[in-house]
Amino acid sequence: MTTPLAAKIAREYGTPAAVIDMDKVERNIARIQAACEAVGVANRPHIKTHKSPLLAKMQIAAGAKGITCQKLGEAEVMADAGIDDILISYNLIGEEKMARLAALQAKAGMTVAADNPTVIAGLPQAAKLSGRKLAVVVECDTGRKRAGVETPTEAVALARQIAGLEGLSFAGFMLYPTETGWTEAQTFYDEALAGVRAHGLDAAMVSTGGSPNLKNLGKLRGATEHRPGTYIYNDRMQVAAGVADWEDCALSIYATVVSRAAPDRGILDAGSKTLTSDAGGGLDGFGLILEHPEARIARFAEEHGFLDLTRSNTRPNVGDVVRIVPNHVCVVVNMMDEVVMVRGDEIIDVLPVAARGKLR
Amino acid sequence: MTTPLAAKIAREYGTPAAVIDMDKVERNIARIQAACEAVGVANRPHIKTHKSPLLAKMQIAAGAKGITCQKLGEAEVMADAGIDDILISYNLIGEEKMARLAALQAKAGMTVAADNPTVIAGLPQAAKLSGRKLAVVVECDTGRKRAGVETPTEAVALARQIAGLEGLSFAGFMLYPTETGWTEAQTFYDEALAGVRAHGLDAAMVSTGGSPNLKNLGKLRGATEHRPGTYIYNDRMQVAAGVADWEDCALSIYATVVSRAAPDRGILDAGSKTLTSDAGGGLDGFGLILEHPEARIARFAEEHGFLDLTRSNTRPNVGDVVRIVPNHVCVVVNMMDEVVMVRGDEIIDVLPVAARGKLR
Repeated sequence: MTTPLAAKIAREYGTPAAVIDMDKVERNIARIQAACEAVGVANRPHIKTHKSPLLAKMQIAAGAKGITCQKLGEAEVMADAGIDDILISYNLIGEEKMARLAALQAKAGMTVAADNPTVIAGLPQAAKLSGRKLAVVVECDTGRKRAGVETPTEAVALARQIAGLEGLSFAGFMLYPTETGWTEAQTFYDEALAGVRAHGLDAAMVSTGGSPNLKNLGKLRGATEHRPGTYIYNDRMQVAAGVADWEDCALSIYATVVSRAAPDRGILDAGSKTLTSDAGGGLDGFGLILEHPEARIARFAEEHGFLDLTRSNTRPNVGDVVRIVPNHVCVVVNMMDEVVMVRGDEIIDVLPVAARGKLR
Repeated sequence: MTTPLAAKIAREYGTPAAVIDMDKVERNIARIQAACEAVGVANRPHIKTHKSPLLAKMQIAAGAKGITCQKLGEAEVMADAGIDDILISYNLIGEEKMARLAALQAKAGMTVAADNPTVIAGLPQAAKLSGRKLAVVVECDTGRKRAGVETPTEAVALARQIAGLEGLSFAGFMLYPTETGWTEAQTFYDEALAGVRAHGLDAAMVSTGGSPNLKNLGKLRGATEHRPGTYIYNDRMQVAAGVADWEDCALSIYATVVSRAAPDRGILDAGSKTLTSDAGGGLDGFGLILEHPEARIARFAEEHGFLDLTRSNTRPNVGDVVRIVPNHVCVVVNMMDEVVMVRGDEIIDVLPVAARGKLR
């Protein structure tokens, strides 16, 4: 079974193709903006999900305060497109990166995150090159064991280091609590805030993160903003996390069944170079096929998706074009140079994933 | 510990960066070309690994008969660069793809693979549009349960279908045996060959595949060519398969340690959007760090590599630049717009991964 739109996509663009439904995109943008406003927290969407200035500008037009980027290269694409309030939520280090950060400071209001003295010691170089103050937030680990200092004491020490360095200003704290760790995050933040206040500093920006954490929006007393990314498209992980329904999943991969060498199996023309090997934190298979929800994308070669059809009553034929909701949409978009924008059954345009591949 | 070259890469390009050692690339090309010639099998390297016309031309200059591509978009990049003997080892289906295949036929000698009647029935459209005969090989499954017919009887039926269609010519068989399945592959091929000969056909091209199968090179009596891909760079999987040593691994990801929030862990600036979540068929961790082989890249966020240092006596500092041999180099190169070419400690040039992102 191939929908009329899927047939059109295959005919005009070929498969595999990433297709975004702009009605759903707009609805997702509006819904989360409203949710942020309802609890009095600014929205600073993370553009890692879509990597497109057009969509970032739609988020800002809907009321977002600014954006979040993970990489300098992403921020460069966004600043060149005129976005002027950018948080890079990442430790930046080295003279090559400081020169680029300085250039960014001339184009946009920049804030960066840091979690250690070595990174902070390097940041004045950017401020010196740009002749502008650089705002720095201290990244706090509250359970993920990713980046971030592990204790409020360390957070306070870094805040004081920032405040004491020429060209830097201490801007506040960045947190990314686990979905169940908001009580601990509150304790951490309260202690860190008291600590910096004891030294005459204050936290103007207190930023929490994550689309799965949208269910915790407003739970941190003192939070000034949230950094959701995936909500603009959603995916199987967001549905599993309980923050989106299938109807909110705005991006699908359209793929063709290219082989059916035996009754209980088949091959899609989308493999790990399209859908990626991201298991979505333990989901069953590598995507949901809307036309065949009981089929399982069991494994991948680079350009082959292995379909296990043993549980399927209806099975696709060679040539069928199916729609797949990916496990983790952020890494899938990152495989594409472009996505196809549709509204209902109409193809509107092709949107470049302009900040894709900006690893540095 | 940061090597002088790593410091130079970080300073001039920033990290994470993919770096290829051209001395090793040339040695790998020469070694496998010689191995093919020693057993009298032509070399038709799969360009999915490097996706670069420059490297494909080096393979051809060293003696390769032609190249293999998995996608039309890859073949378009290669044909535009002047490469004139291309096998697309993939079922192609749909009018959009047939128009592009016809355009390719005007630029290069094209052969395509097919494993089912639906795909074959569509191929004459390309031949009609181009006005040229299209060579078609029948893909045979010999144990991988990927694409490919499961029985010699089906292979013979498809060969006869090809031979009977206007504009198509039956060119032979394409196999991709498992590493331990060459005896079964021989039986399959012998039966299929006898079957087509009984109908007045013959197999001019008998193509085997895979770099891990380089240890089986020449084992299939009747094989005319082999399609290795990964051998040009090699990776942890090839070392694990016993077909390469660490010294043969020509590509490394240079990454910076950006966080060390606790003694037994750290964060690299290369996550799943650089190294991918490809586990390399069950390898421990997501890459080998040459400076810290006992460190484990335990898991990823999109731009964070989680370092487990519990087994490490020497531990990296924030700011150290390390070199990582990836699990599966083909999917890692596919994340990059470019790779940095070096010779010894000298940076030579930046090479675009020209056929990256050609999903269609």
